[in-house]
Amino acid sequence: MKAMGPVPADFQASADNCLMVGDWRAPDLVAEQGGTPLFAYDKAVITERVRRFRAAMPDAVKLHYAVKANPFPDLLQTLAPLVDGFDLASWKEMTLAQEVAGRDFPLSFAGPGKPDFAPDGEQAMGVTVNLESEGEFERFVHGGSNRFAVRVNPPFGLKGSGMKMGGLASPFGVDHDRVPALVRRILEAGAEWRGLHVYAGSQSLSAAAIIESQRATVALAAEIAEAVGVTPPEVNLGGGFGIPYFAGDDSLDIVAVGAALRETLDQRPAILRDTRFVIELGRWLVGECGIYLTRVVDRKVSRGKTFLVVDGGLHHMLAASGNFGQLLRRNYPVAVAGRFGSEPEEEVSVVGCLCTPLDILADEVMLPRAEVGDLIAIFCAGAYGLTASPQAFLSQKAAREVVV
Amino acid sequence: MKAMGPVPADFQASADNCLMVGDWRAPDLVAEQGGTPLFAYDKAVITERVRRFRAAMPDAVKLHYAVKANPFPDLLQTLAPLVDGFDLASWKEMTLAQEVAGRDFPLSFAGPGKPDFAPDGEQAMGVTVNLESEGEFERFVHGGSNRFAVRVNPPFGLKGSGMKMGGLASPFGVDHDRVPALVRRILEAGAEWRGLHVYAGSQSLSAAAIIESQRATVALAAEIAEAVGVTPPEVNLGGGFGIPYFAGDDSLDIVAVGAALRETLDQRPAILRDTRFVIELGRWLVGECGIYLTRVVDRKVSRGKTFLVVDGGLHHMLAASGNFGQLLRRNYPVAVAGRFGSEPEEEVSVVGCLCTPLDILADEVMLPRAEVGDLIAIFCAGAYGLTASPQAFLSQKAAREVVV
Repeated sequence: MKAMGPVPADFQASADNCLMVGDWRAPDLVAEQGGTPLFAYDKAVITERVRRFRAAMPDAVKLHYAVKANPFPDLLQTLAPLVDGFDLASWKEMTLAQEVAGRDFPLSFAGPGKPDFAPDGEQAMGVTVNLESEGEFERFVHGGSNRFAVRVNPPFGLKGSGMKMGGLASPFGVDHDRVPALVRRILEAGAEWRGLHVYAGSQSLSAAAIIESQRATVALAAEIAEAVGVTPPEVNLGGGFGIPYFAGDDSLDIVAVGAALRETLDQRPAILRDTRFVIELGRWLVGECGIYLTRVVDRKVSRGKTFLVVDGGLHHMLAASGNFGQLLRRNYPVAVAGRFGSEPEEEVSVVGCLCTPLDILADEVMLPRAEVGDLIAIFCAGAYGLTASPQAFLSQKAAREVVV
Repeated sequence: MKAMGPVPADFQASADNCLMVGDWRAPDLVAEQGGTPLFAYDKAVITERVRRFRAAMPDAVKLHYAVKANPFPDLLQTLAPLVDGFDLASWKEMTLAQEVAGRDFPLSFAGPGKPDFAPDGEQAMGVTVNLESEGEFERFVHGGSNRFAVRVNPPFGLKGSGMKMGGLASPFGVDHDRVPALVRRILEAGAEWRGLHVYAGSQSLSAAAIIESQRATVALAAEIAEAVGVTPPEVNLGGGFGIPYFAGDDSLDIVAVGAALRETLDQRPAILRDTRFVIELGRWLVGECGIYLTRVVDRKVSRGKTFLVVDGGLHHMLAASGNFGQLLRRNYPVAVAGRFGSEPEEEVSVVGCLCTPLDILADEVMLPRAEVGDLIAIFCAGAYGLTASPQAFLSQKAAREVVV
């Protein structure tokens, strides 16, 4: 028997023991949407996360959504009125974001390999380009963009994060000691300098590590501002807020993070007095709202081990198979949707329909008994789920998505 | 400095030092196809692999192509006249295969989670369904299919293979000791029994391991046939032929495999005298024909390390980033396409355009100097490349594909 991650506390069982997603019994939702595999995103969970963020953080801190976590248009529609801006990782994400939130919605674009191509000059005018290198500035300032922030490769990383993105040689951002020169270059060129962007890592569950990283980020921003002699209009403190995926993971203590950030900002150097601070979150905002629902198509026993074969798989939920950045495969939280409140009865492995031994969605977990036709729910599927998976692999049935 | 895998010997430099793909200089091909990222598949390499297979193997052995390795229609078009059948992993692959090769082309369908859905009964009639469980037979025999082979979960695995698929509890196939009963059930139901399918593992570079596995497969097939008292019309020996991806990998000695298989078949038990034998290959046939071409959009130095940022990435070549079944990330063979014959000059890391630290295509390799605008070639991109990658991730530019 292997452990699985904790099912998010947001989800409840119906009177007849079915997983509820929003106001829907999971089987009814699947039927209404035309079948499995289905990604269902629960709007109430997102709203609750935003509320929790606002309650914990100082009022002055703005909240951006990182579109790359999940660009499903109905989800962007849900988020647009709740957050203060979107962060983008491609021009196509810009188009999506503007279609949903309008041309005036605050957008910024980060990423190391931005192509010259922009859909059209005017459309990209309002977007803040987070520069990843000096060369990128020269390419973009001649290409029509004129709002620039500088992404800083800081001399520190976010400790214990799933992906450390600072403190090392990096494709992301400009080494911190070269940033003042680039800011001067932006100002000399007559372009608009929007400020600094520091992203030290992602998927951290340690409040202490995030607090330390945010303190260091504010200090670094002040140091750069002093070197240039200009107040940055905005400092994007990055994100890094993780969610529990695996056994033993605890939720991030966001109240502690917020309290410490209030203190950090209260004591910030004078040159940052008029700076606006932003936190950009993807996974933390939408990861736990999403459930991947897939149907058992075969139940088989091989050499004493029971397999539930489902109609979904790693082509929709690569991360749950352990093949996206994980060194060791561990189990996401999983449930039998029609027996959500029931006690576990048997050890099973849930495998996808792909003809590859990589396609394991839950390995040797204890679940209530499930038969052919039953729905399996895989939690924590709201971020880095469908779009971070090889959807064309083996030309299987496409997944549906719905916000409820 | 880290090592990289061997560039396939099939590829040569032009007089002006450019990588040639078929009759094309790589930059000319990219221009003709409208830009990067581009997957180019060299038909001559495929033809040569098929020739090598036919020369090495006993005449009686049929060659099937596993469509899941690469379902690009022009590639299927290239392969159809060269091979004796296609193996499928989904109904959509069946549709693709029949569009390219016609309704009479031999097709078989394996995979643990086959959905009931078939495009239409008549279209699926000629397809051999490789049964993965007893339950699957009951579902399919009532669903119109009437040609069945039984996939066997053998009591042995392919030693040293990249993915061992036998000898263990498995979602694939029916445990060997239950196979005779299922074959009898098929015969009693009046359906057509096409034989046995044994797939013990994939991506092996050891001739000795493949020889041993093929011997064991023939012996197991004879044992099952004796138990049933009927000669299987066909035994699919699986595949498992690997290709060199990484430093230290040597090509599989297919001549040795063929010689040993000839001996094994010459000495096979009488009950298999009239059996047809099939080997199904994906990766070995098309893996090395493919090159992923991507353009340098930024060249940057961070803390003494040089990064070439390209317009492609793991959204097209997930396996090259080390995130598809590998425990440790190692470098695929990589080259600067415009300086293919040149000596290496500097240590660089080639990173994709995605805003994630996972997006590394080549880590600390020695290459000739490349500037913004130059083409980087990533080899061994013909199998499990584009369709095995999260193409929608970060909504980046789509890749093109071409057979030359």
